Amino acid sequence: MIDSPQNQHVKLFRSLAEAKHRRETGLFAMEGRRLVAEAVRAGAELMWAAYSPEKFVGPEADRLLHSLMQANVELHEITPRALAAMTHTETPPGIGAVGRIPETYPLAPSPRGGGSAWWLALWQIRDPGNLGSMVRIAHAFGAAGVVAVGPCADFWDPKVVRASAGSVLWVSLLEAEGLPELRVLFGEDSRDGPHNGTTGVPPVLPAPWVLVAADMQAPLACDEAEYALPCVLLVGSEAHGLPEEVLAAADLRVRIPMPGEAESLNAAVAAGILAFQVSRKAARAGQF
Amino acid sequence: MIDSPQNQHVKLFRSLAEAKHRRETGLFAMEGRRLVAEAVRAGAELMWAAYSPEKFVGPEADRLLHSLMQANVELHEITPRALAAMTHTETPPGIGAVGRIPETYPLAPSPRGGGSAWWLALWQIRDPGNLGSMVRIAHAFGAAGVVAVGPCADFWDPKVVRASAGSVLWVSLLEAEGLPELRVLFGEDSRDGPHNGTTGVPPVLPAPWVLVAADMQAPLACDEAEYALPCVLLVGSEAHGLPEEVLAAADLRVRIPMPGEAESLNAAVAAGILAFQVSRKAARAGQF
Repeated sequence: MIDSPQNQHVKLFRSLAEAKHRRETGLFAMEGRRLVAEAVRAGAELMWAAYSPEKFVGPEADRLLHSLMQANVELHEITPRALAAMTHTETPPGIGAVGRIPETYPLAPSPRGGGSAWWLALWQIRDPGNLGSMVRIAHAFGAAGVVAVGPCADFWDPKVVRASAGSVLWVSLLEAEGLPELRVLFGEDSRDGPHNGTTGVPPVLPAPWVLVAADMQAPLACDEAEYALPCVLLVGSEAHGLPEEVLAAADLRVRIPMPGEAESLNAAVAAGILAFQVSRKAARAGQF
Repeated sequence: MIDSPQNQHVKLFRSLAEAKHRRETGLFAMEGRRLVAEAVRAGAELMWAAYSPEKFVGPEADRLLHSLMQANVELHEITPRALAAMTHTETPPGIGAVGRIPETYPLAPSPRGGGSAWWLALWQIRDPGNLGSMVRIAHAFGAAGVVAVGPCADFWDPKVVRASAGSVLWVSLLEAEGLPELRVLFGEDSRDGPHNGTTGVPPVLPAPWVLVAADMQAPLACDEAEYALPCVLLVGSEAHGLPEEVLAAADLRVRIPMPGEAESLNAAVAAGILAFQVSRKAARAGQF
């Protein structure tokens, strides 16, 4: 029974709140029954799980322990004290687990296949809750994946993993430094023959594709636009939106019409409304 | 200069994190420049504000201090130490203020008029971040107000006020114990003559109105529905949704089509997508 806050598992788990330690180990931490169950369902590689026999009880807990055993995941019992020392949620969960961060580039096929009609690209989203919600939105609306452009929160930050409700395990997650790198990633030049970008691997989305940008000043309402597919939907943060040079590079700029007086929507809510529009267009085009 | 964590203003501010103290005093607390500026803009009654002369600097800070002085708000200087003791955000803000919770029933006219085409009703939303985001959504999409139905987070909880980005000050906020109380509030029986409900005041929305419920099992897609106006859009929490008896009482049940594999959306994101649909219908009907 793990009890000491100095136990190596406890210390590893806690260290994974920092990007540096995630990069060094290639591991990430997840807290709570729902996330661990989602990881099992997604076929994630779990290194170990630790649960409190005292707190982690009931039929759903039993089911999860059973499926962890079936998947040969190393299981530890842990005291509530050590679990609280290890985890970050306000109400300490009954279980925590450590998993391997999946390879994302070159792309592993997503666990459930998934369409390639559209991608969600996020511009400088630093808030972990918003980033996680946006990954969840991409997953719900059938995006092939999410690209974090510029300085964003880290996909494997425990707060992002939690806000994504496990969707980080279901969609492809990529990073790009800026718009030029995004264009290379998405094979901008593949119209002219095989892709010769800096990465040396095939583009994740074969050109031609269109870049759709969220722009609160755009004349075109998002539900009146025609979305050509495949497309990359690019959204910015609520404080800053997208910079002018990025907007200028977009093929299509759409606005969420707001009759009310609120200055702006939460960035994840805005992304959800736009992602819904794009996914409906893709559905009507028979892409799902 | 306020410096002691035991100072009466510091203690009052801190106490307003609890619903009990908000009820006793009729006051609420707000943290940070944006919220205090929004309160001034909304014409909220501010009891006092306290700012750190050391940390609260720059042209935007100066503008806010100027408008607080113009509005004759009692201004205190406070040390960063006392400000940190008083506030709850991770990075302590440079300013905090205490305001009077506006009267919400019988309805004061909303500061900017606002339509009466639709209301947002929230079923048992206990998460303060989600409740605040939903108030912001209602404000952005021109709802006349928000009704919290059943046990919800409190509109004046500092976390709700923050997540609403100040929208709590712009829309009418009501509470109802359950569906019957919601129906009384909205004047269900006003078709038969003057309203005689338990409140003794006119209903906030004259009947007839339709109850639209978010229902992930509904056959009708939210963007293919016809929304009769005025309407009340009712959404539940992401964990539980709306109970069967509530769904059965709705005039219209709509689904957000999700081609992906995510189990559900964040409740605020779902509310945003539905609110957008209703507001577009209202706009097309010339209600804004």
